[in-house]
Amino acid sequence: MRSPQPLRNGDTPSPHHRTPDQHPHFHSTVALRKLRRFNLLILLFRFAAFCFSLASSVFMVTNSGGSDSPHWYDFGAFRFVLAANSIVALYSLFEMAASVWEISRGDTLFPESLQVWFDFCHDQVFAYLLISAASAGTELARTLKGKETCTATNAFCVQADIATALGFAGFLFLGFSSLLSGFRLVCFIISGSRLHL
Amino acid sequence: MRSPQPLRNGDTPSPHHRTPDQHPHFHSTVALRKLRRFNLLILLFRFAAFCFSLASSVFMVTNSGGSDSPHWYDFGAFRFVLAANSIVALYSLFEMAASVWEISRGDTLFPESLQVWFDFCHDQVFAYLLISAASAGTELARTLKGKETCTATNAFCVQADIATALGFAGFLFLGFSSLLSGFRLVCFIISGSRLHL
Repeated sequence: MRSPQPLRNGDTPSPHHRTPDQHPHFHSTVALRKLRRFNLLILLFRFAAFCFSLASSVFMVTNSGGSDSPHWYDFGAFRFVLAANSIVALYSLFEMAASVWEISRGDTLFPESLQVWFDFCHDQVFAYLLISAASAGTELARTLKGKETCTATNAFCVQADIATALGFAGFLFLGFSSLLSGFRLVCFIISGSRLHL
Repeated sequence: MRSPQPLRNGDTPSPHHRTPDQHPHFHSTVALRKLRRFNLLILLFRFAAFCFSLASSVFMVTNSGGSDSPHWYDFGAFRFVLAANSIVALYSLFEMAASVWEISRGDTLFPESLQVWFDFCHDQVFAYLLISAASAGTELARTLKGKETCTATNAFCVQADIATALGFAGFLFLGFSSLLSGFRLVCFIISGSRLHL
């Protein structure tokens, strides 16, 4: 008696019990490797952004000498530089943790749709925030040049310049991260999965 | 005698001569309609960005009263605001023309790959440029407040404030355009055509 679904010529019986979704699983293994490389690149950019924005914050917050020298908190733009860089440093730290989690476990920290939107939106907003703060800081530093603040205590102005420059460097790497997370978001919108790179 | 490829029951003979690629063409007609709506939205954002950045430029360049009043070109940050807004106004005008061309003719002004990269890269760079200029302008305007420049000729400072605020509005719409052109670019990278929305 013939089986209702006979094996045709050339067909081989499955050695193991296979489910129909194992073929897509093979595809997603290839995609996972690509995604892993992609995530490592994002992690690298986030690490650089973290280092620069942390350094900028430290340079700014320690920028006050004695009681007669000017302090960073006397100037609105320098407070803005410190706030923006601190926010970006904290955010980058969190995102680095989320990236390491994703690379090691193969799954996102938050649900996938939330994660890709969260990353991209925050990257965008914080990149604009950081360049805005750095530009305001640069303009204030330029205005102070030649004034008595800088002629009396030149070290204050130099340190403020360095902090602002580090903020620009942090922005650069955050901008790169933003491009990559934007790419991942559009992949997710189009194909319904961040895996399809 | 039977025909070698007989029409089956339910099959209808083609009224016109049809080529095999007419079915994909039908798909791309649906995509074209979507793309048209998408392009109209970009055009709207570009028009808004153009209006605001042009208004900002005009407000800044006319910001000099008599010979005893201060001029916009005496201040580096205000020159930066004017330059950035003028560049964005010109760029938006060009992009509006390119959008109108694309909507009316259904094809991009430059070759497709060049066009999507050109749009996105310029949108990104000019959005960062504009917010940088507006932030620097805001910081300078804040510094000038309370100084003799503003107490003597208050109109100068008010007009500078307005020009800077208009720059921020221009940035907002350029940022939206940048998101849309970024989406289009990733569509192009993934599927090889900007049509697959």
